[in-house]
Amino acid sequence: MDLTERLAGRPMTNPRADRVKDVAGLAGRSARSRRGLFLAEGPQNAREALARHLEAPCVDAVYVTAEALARHPDVAVLLEQVLADRSVFVRLVSREVLAAMSDAVTPQGVVVVCRLLDVPAEQVLATRPRLLAVLVRVQDPGNAGTVLRAADAAGADAVVLTAGSVDVYNPKAVRSTAGSLFHLPVVQGADLPGLIDGARAAGCGVLAADGRGDADLDRLQDASAARAAGLPAAGYDLARPTVWLFGNEAQGLSAPEKALADHRVAVPVHGRAESLNVGTAATVCLYASARAQRRAPASGAGR
Amino acid sequence: MDLTERLAGRPMTNPRADRVKDVAGLAGRSARSRRGLFLAEGPQNAREALARHLEAPCVDAVYVTAEALARHPDVAVLLEQVLADRSVFVRLVSREVLAAMSDAVTPQGVVVVCRLLDVPAEQVLATRPRLLAVLVRVQDPGNAGTVLRAADAAGADAVVLTAGSVDVYNPKAVRSTAGSLFHLPVVQGADLPGLIDGARAAGCGVLAADGRGDADLDRLQDASAARAAGLPAAGYDLARPTVWLFGNEAQGLSAPEKALADHRVAVPVHGRAESLNVGTAATVCLYASARAQRRAPASGAGR
Repeated sequence: MDLTERLAGRPMTNPRADRVKDVAGLAGRSARSRRGLFLAEGPQNAREALARHLEAPCVDAVYVTAEALARHPDVAVLLEQVLADRSVFVRLVSREVLAAMSDAVTPQGVVVVCRLLDVPAEQVLATRPRLLAVLVRVQDPGNAGTVLRAADAAGADAVVLTAGSVDVYNPKAVRSTAGSLFHLPVVQGADLPGLIDGARAAGCGVLAADGRGDADLDRLQDASAARAAGLPAAGYDLARPTVWLFGNEAQGLSAPEKALADHRVAVPVHGRAESLNVGTAATVCLYASARAQRRAPASGAGR
Repeated sequence: MDLTERLAGRPMTNPRADRVKDVAGLAGRSARSRRGLFLAEGPQNAREALARHLEAPCVDAVYVTAEALARHPDVAVLLEQVLADRSVFVRLVSREVLAAMSDAVTPQGVVVVCRLLDVPAEQVLATRPRLLAVLVRVQDPGNAGTVLRAADAAGADAVVLTAGSVDVYNPKAVRSTAGSLFHLPVVQGADLPGLIDGARAAGCGVLAADGRGDADLDRLQDASAARAAGLPAAGYDLARPTVWLFGNEAQGLSAPEKALADHRVAVPVHGRAESLNVGTAATVCLYASARAQRRAPASGAGR
């Protein structure tokens, strides 16, 4: 008996059912924090949520349409494995029910209800991280999600959002992460000075991305390549464990926030753009650190 | 007499006026192409549109609230200069009128109606460009705008969108460019094989960003640094004039599209992310080329 048949016994078809309203309500921050749950929508997030659940339980419920199950066999395979787990509520739903649960303009056939995943800053610092991305009062959910996805790709050990930042469990932020929320630890509501003290104690240097910074990212990267080649080089060593600070999209980092960093680092702007999108700046900075850290043990800039 | 007073003589306060509907209609692609006009919203876009207009006329009309004029003195200064130009229609409008004209959820007090800016591919190729970003069937307006802004920051000579891509004049795309649309030439509706033939004839190499690519961007960058240091290095020279191809966000580049490139280049993914957002990939690739091209004449990897 295949998965669709096993689930077909009790499909949900009433978009006005209390359970549907409960799920839809998780689009709001207060319901999320009260209930300790959030929504992960779409096949990519569902796949990553289910894969993580099989390692460390995090999924509360899964609602999926028959069409989506047929279209995403990888999700169906994971669901088969999860179904044995009685603590996860899995239901086939009609498209109307899915649309009523989803926050997306174009629902993608599957909604996973997950338990909040964020961890305390102390837990991240105890692992002696090599690369941390800190979002300082970033407001736009799409930006936060994009930075989280870029941090995952760059191999960052965790992402931290300071107090006053957008909620990373905002449905739009979750969609923008494309599943990366399930890949690396996230800290929310961090106090920036306390976090930086803890990171320094854990051996990290602190860099602030700042368009008007005193250090130039290209020079830091060249110095890192030189060092890896055994040549002398001055300045901050990008191969060090590093915390990167990225500021609010409109105002950037405040003067006191910048002052907390060892260096304020400018990403070069070669054209006429006045500034970089926070996602773009974070991508360039995190990839620069990742490159330096991964090159450090090797030798020769030409490798 | 200050600008607000000069404009106050004839404020627009009726959100149902025909002119208001005409402006709002430019949120739609067919009205834009029929009338040859598009909307640039918000102070950042307004500033860049007006600055460009003073060099090469492109602004048809400006609608601004008194609050926005007071809050953005840089826009007011540019408007003063543009007011002498009788071909630009400038009006103070009420907040209701501005909201009715704007496509944005949170209108930012100023809407500029501009003439379409895109140029033929031949015009771009005739300048023998060193760095071109080509969006191949990219669908999301926010992604297209973000890549355009990143291409501007990386100093690209132009951005090309192939046939089947989102319209770069989509209001959301324009907002995401943060003014970069007024900084560098944009080509729309390009035929990819024809564009690549033309680019090769103009001396460019062609690289396709491809998660499963045969070339690794880190290695290309290291080879470039080695070459600049006078060391031998094999493979594609990133310092060459280069066209980068970036694919559709869901499907990437098709096999025939990839086959058009000299190399398929993978951006390293160090963490567990399965893929990169197109904006993230474009940022890393374009910055890598910019770095190599700008380093080429210098010597020494440690500089």
